[in-house]
Amino acid sequence: MNDSVRAIVWQDNHLRLLDQRRLPESLVWNDYFDLESVAEAIKDMVVRGAPAIGIAAAYACVMAVRQHFTKDPEGWKENIQATLDHLAQARPTAVNLHWAIERIRALIETCDNKNPVKTVLAEAEKIHKEDIQANHTMGKLGSALIEEGQSVLTHCNTGSLATGGFGTALGVIRQAWKDGKLKNVFADETRPWLQGSRLTAWELTTDQIPVRLLADSAAPLLMAHEEVQWVIVGADRITAKGDVANKIGTYGLALAAKKHGVKFMVVAPSSTVDMALKNGRDIPIEFRGSEELLEVAGSSYQHADVGAWNPVFDVTPASLIDYIVTEKGVVEKPTLAKMKSLMNSVS
Amino acid sequence: MNDSVRAIVWQDNHLRLLDQRRLPESLVWNDYFDLESVAEAIKDMVVRGAPAIGIAAAYACVMAVRQHFTKDPEGWKENIQATLDHLAQARPTAVNLHWAIERIRALIETCDNKNPVKTVLAEAEKIHKEDIQANHTMGKLGSALIEEGQSVLTHCNTGSLATGGFGTALGVIRQAWKDGKLKNVFADETRPWLQGSRLTAWELTTDQIPVRLLADSAAPLLMAHEEVQWVIVGADRITAKGDVANKIGTYGLALAAKKHGVKFMVVAPSSTVDMALKNGRDIPIEFRGSEELLEVAGSSYQHADVGAWNPVFDVTPASLIDYIVTEKGVVEKPTLAKMKSLMNSVS
Repeated sequence: MNDSVRAIVWQDNHLRLLDQRRLPESLVWNDYFDLESVAEAIKDMVVRGAPAIGIAAAYACVMAVRQHFTKDPEGWKENIQATLDHLAQARPTAVNLHWAIERIRALIETCDNKNPVKTVLAEAEKIHKEDIQANHTMGKLGSALIEEGQSVLTHCNTGSLATGGFGTALGVIRQAWKDGKLKNVFADETRPWLQGSRLTAWELTTDQIPVRLLADSAAPLLMAHEEVQWVIVGADRITAKGDVANKIGTYGLALAAKKHGVKFMVVAPSSTVDMALKNGRDIPIEFRGSEELLEVAGSSYQHADVGAWNPVFDVTPASLIDYIVTEKGVVEKPTLAKMKSLMNSVS
Repeated sequence: MNDSVRAIVWQDNHLRLLDQRRLPESLVWNDYFDLESVAEAIKDMVVRGAPAIGIAAAYACVMAVRQHFTKDPEGWKENIQATLDHLAQARPTAVNLHWAIERIRALIETCDNKNPVKTVLAEAEKIHKEDIQANHTMGKLGSALIEEGQSVLTHCNTGSLATGGFGTALGVIRQAWKDGKLKNVFADETRPWLQGSRLTAWELTTDQIPVRLLADSAAPLLMAHEEVQWVIVGADRITAKGDVANKIGTYGLALAAKKHGVKFMVVAPSSTVDMALKNGRDIPIEFRGSEELLEVAGSSYQHADVGAWNPVFDVTPASLIDYIVTEKGVVEKPTLAKMKSLMNSVS
């Protein structure tokens, strides 16, 4: 009920991805048989969303192990390293990609040469399954913070399309909807890639959860009009002191939320936390091509002298965040000490 | 030089408007022979921008006078009132529309029945000419506030396309560019109607002023990266205490500018000031159809259950504004007393 979408499937020994560039117009599944094509799919945003990228990468590693082990059953562990490095470079901001690859890399170190494909596939499936479980846990933790009759605004897509299933921020919204708590759900359209209007609106309507779209820039007025009590977003990387890199626009939402007393909740699995980085300013910000901005205005700029400044993530400082919800627990008003305590706890 | 665009032309006894819905793809001129079709053009945004709407309305009044006077040379002054009321309702937020109509209405009161069309046409042309003059004055006043080597961000379109010519906020940018002061010009794409990417980018590149586009939601990061020292915007209505209604997104820009010590300049002719309204919260905010948001995501939502919340203006409180630049002078840190003093001064 209210949770019917799955976008990453391992089937017949290969990876299938729902092509998110084509939604909501067309439901197209693409088939991937090697790591390189999955790396391209991540770069081209066939699959996007930090947790989903991590899961797709884990399955890509399975196919890389198969390829290298078949080719050279003795030297495969050494040969595969450059391939894994290549995959890690597909997108720079989300840390889950690196996290998944390092988890597989560590497993490869320890596994024997009998049936490594089976071992690594089991790990990828575990990563996938754990992600869905984490989302359900976060959904309950986040929903518990919401009072009956409140309304929420979300940004980008953090649902089943962005994860193994159920979603992070959208998982909290899904759970709160199921719990009968939500009055209204609003979603930013999320330029330039329109994750909100193309993916979140599609996913929520598919699951019969009513949603209203707004222009990203209308969110401060939505708050001024007291239409929402919560902003709930995901994260691509969270630093040790609780600064959050997330889809471009998140920082502006947090500034407006603070101004209007709207609560700001970040929902992400602990695999998103990068304890090696303290400050948000040290998170690498991905800039993408100008065509993402220019194409919407028509083709006449293709060869004209219009430039673009197209960062696709920004950083929200911990001071603007009320709650970070992970599967390990909830951190209120994040600090270095609280984040350390969270990450050292047993989940 | 750097000022070649004009979008409102009175020619052969009728009004010609450059169709702004078609830019930048096509340069299409539409011809209007009566007030009703101009009212539709204002509603449909063939012409937009508060001062441009006022000028187009003034010319529409000329055609209404011609029609009513020809039909009934005795009763035309009474008969025309309902027609003028109809025009005033075309768009609710911008006050210049009402201002222009009231100016013509007052003239009609006093003019004789000899050649009223000629009299009213002279007034419309005066309104048009005064607007361009005011823009040049504001351009100089605004540019004087900018230091050499600074960079600016603007929102929506406030240039020749939005006025009689030269522009308000974009007039300041045009003048500052001519004065050799500007390092970089950035423009928000301005969803949902894309005035930035369709109109401002077209207008500036047409006039050889380099510009870089960004997603509206990227502006706070632009400021955090210290890429701009100014946000310069127009206004659709300014209240007696200096609250400013302007294109949706302006309020969020002002919040982010305050946070980052970026100066915030509003540029608008004094016809935009509504001394009858004290507080910004009393300004009527226009909401437009959901298709402006949904169409960009493709046709599949046309009949689906996705709603939209589409306000096209918001209100920025005076406390977030550093300068209001009018042709009557500059108000720093606007207050009721300062606005009264400005409006009572002789221009």
